[in-house]
Amino acid sequence: MPLVQISLREGKPAQYRRALGDSIHRALVEVLAVPADDHFQLITEHKTENVVHDSHYLGIERTDDVVFVRITLGLGRTLAQKRALYARIAALLAESPGLRPQDVFIVLVEIQLENWSFGNGVAQYADTPPTWINRQA
Amino acid sequence: MPLVQISLREGKPAQYRRALGDSIHRALVEVLAVPADDHFQLITEHKTENVVHDSHYLGIERTDDVVFVRITLGLGRTLAQKRALYARIAALLAESPGLRPQDVFIVLVEIQLENWSFGNGVAQYADTPPTWINRQA
Amino acid sequence: MPLVQISLREGKPAQYRRALGDSIHRALVEVLAVPADDHFQLITEHKTENVVHDSHYLGIERTDDVVFVRITLGLGRTLAQKRALYARIAALLAESPGLRPQDVFIVLVEIQLENWSFGNGVAQYADTPPTWINRQA
Repeated sequence: MPLVQISLREGKPAQYRRALGDSIHRALVEVLAVPADDHFQLITEHKTENVVHDSHYLGIERTDDVVFVRITLGLGRTLAQKRALYARIAALLAESPGLRPQDVFIVLVEIQLENWSFGNGVAQYADTPPTWINRQA
Repeated sequence: MPLVQISLREGKPAQYRRALGDSIHRALVEVLAVPADDHFQLITEHKTENVVHDSHYLGIERTDDVVFVRITLGLGRTLAQKRALYARIAALLAESPGLRPQDVFIVLVEIQLENWSFGNGVAQYADTPPTWINRQA
Repeated sequence: MPLVQISLREGKPAQYRRALGDSIHRALVEVLAVPADDHFQLITEHKTENVVHDSHYLGIERTDDVVFVRITLGLGRTLAQKRALYARIAALLAESPGLRPQDVFIVLVEIQLENWSFGNGVAQYADTPPTWINRQA
């Protein structure tokens, strides 16, 4: 159910971008018990000047490698789950592709379960709510 | 009021992309009674490797033609309206440009009416709430 | 905290796009008391045919220069603040880069404070809620 949108500056090879997506997905599976095959991501590469980031806000030193991760997901996760998700995403991105944790910017946009259609013009989660929400991995 | 964002892999001609937008807009007009001239869409074409989709999740066989439709719209639609919208979008996209229903992925992001400005720096819907919300076509 | 996403048709020079971002950020600082260094923006340039806008909806005459501004921000702003923000964004964009107010389309997506991570895998605003929310500049 999560739809993950990743924005970064252009110039990174496909393997690097794939590693970004893979690590974020792994964190979602581990922390939120998202099914492994519930894997949907959109990556956007921006010209350098089309990404604006502050290099120090909140005392965090960011570089031009900063990655913006926007995750649209179903309502129902606890604050503890969100904290664990942020930490795990940052840790896994540090492993692969080797992104500094300071350069991981995340926002969650929570929507109702009935707001998803995974294909066929059907509201799959309105019919059958996923059992894995509110269940930690 | 809906702002429609469409993401797909690059390689489809302009006519195909236009048909995507036209069919989604027609569904919004028919099902949600959105005014015909309330027509605002952004299309993003991604490199093939920058779209990640699972080919089987929930038993739906998706192809590389998968289209992600994100619709930002005002709060107030019923589940019945949402179901009808998903079905109509998929049906109209099957007609034109001929997209398989399995390849139609939709998410709705609902926001307050006061969260829109259509120009001139004014919150038009806070001043005059649209009469066509909560009214089926 | 706001994450600002700006979409426009391609063809404008970098200086013009930078002015768009700068004016929007200045409005956020002035009207919502956003810290000056809380500055994060993503700009997307679309092929002409990948932006669809109605030229008259609600009696507003839009041109191909129309700019879509999507602002993801924390919950808690009043309607008065939102109205002031729209007006200030439009006024400052008219000054620089000289965008017609009719061509400024804005949507706000409000999310919980715990839905942000500014780096290091931490939910900074869940730990320390920003004091500047609900405080006008």
